[in-house]
Amino acid sequence: MMETEFLLASNNAHKHQEFVRLFPGIRVLMPRDMGIEFDFDETGDTFLENAFGKAMALFQTAKRPVIGDDSGLCVRALGGEPGIFSSRYGSGAGGVPLEAPRRNAYLLDRMEGIQDRAAYFVCCLVLVLEESRFISVQETVHGRIAEGPRGEHGFGYDPLFIVPGHEKTIAELPDQVKDQISHRGLAARRILASIRGEG
Amino acid sequence: MMETEFLLASNNAHKHQEFVRLFPGIRVLMPRDMGIEFDFDETGDTFLENAFGKAMALFQTAKRPVIGDDSGLCVRALGGEPGIFSSRYGSGAGGVPLEAPRRNAYLLDRMEGIQDRAAYFVCCLVLVLEESRFISVQETVHGRIAEGPRGEHGFGYDPLFIVPGHEKTIAELPDQVKDQISHRGLAARRILASIRGEG
Repeated sequence: MMETEFLLASNNAHKHQEFVRLFPGIRVLMPRDMGIEFDFDETGDTFLENAFGKAMALFQTAKRPVIGDDSGLCVRALGGEPGIFSSRYGSGAGGVPLEAPRRNAYLLDRMEGIQDRAAYFVCCLVLVLEESRFISVQETVHGRIAEGPRGEHGFGYDPLFIVPGHEKTIAELPDQVKDQISHRGLAARRILASIRGEG
Repeated sequence: MMETEFLLASNNAHKHQEFVRLFPGIRVLMPRDMGIEFDFDETGDTFLENAFGKAMALFQTAKRPVIGDDSGLCVRALGGEPGIFSSRYGSGAGGVPLEAPRRNAYLLDRMEGIQDRAAYFVCCLVLVLEESRFISVQETVHGRIAEGPRGEHGFGYDPLFIVPGHEKTIAELPDQVKDQISHRGLAARRILASIRGEG
């Protein structure tokens, strides 16, 4: 059985747009489309725990297939920061998350004078099909942190992340190219293959 | 990139046989084939935590793709027991696990006089590809507990689990039929589709 509709465990419209592109043939709904108010505290220690927690929390309410995502940027010279705290980086514990441009500026400040720019993007997706049935994929893409933000596409840390081979930031790449090489694109294709290949 | 070799995070020869069948085209090795002594304490609260823990523990040693499995039988009338304790059921905390026939007899004793025989088999597989890349699938198959053990195929709780539609225990079905319908067969096919469909 091929699923034809997922509920996305996120209120982020940018993320939703990306999921609509990444899952052709599948209707990706947001919680508000179902009249559900969705809120989730990311208290996990790993991307998997957070992605699983989001997906399962929404599944318990909606009782239909839900996809959860937890993603982040890990910078080697910062010991893996911001990592699972990517969306809250620079806002202090319990603070209101910064807008992406200010968060990116905060990260660049922390990287000032640091030669080692190596970093990787992680995306963990969890598709909950039923109470005790799920598919999860975590993908990682290696690259490096730019000296300053570049490009207008994408969202989040995309303007800071240079992809080897392209020598551009993800935000400088058109969506179709981004989707081919991004952490979320790779993970999404594995999920798609997995649901299509059920036989 | 299609993986062509996995290390199985288990010392169970029956399980290994099943994985060899379920992953055609992939060489499935056991820890001892690599000269690795593998031991893992199943301390997780979920099948996923245990499967992930096993796979990651072996990956840290072997530094090559590892597949971990945690599976179990959940009986509705027993509040989901034995569940994640399936392999240790009836042996007491810290005790030596019982052989399957004695464990099955213990379960049947606990079910004596209970009309509700509903149960389900769960299998969680985790394939760790690299440090921060993995695929995980959990599948569930519903059925019911037989009045007594039947059949000579399979292993573990297979002689007790009646599959609806077939009206036979899993141990009464030939391997090829079992693999089509079993919790582990379903999960394995999704993993296979996912690694083949990477594009």
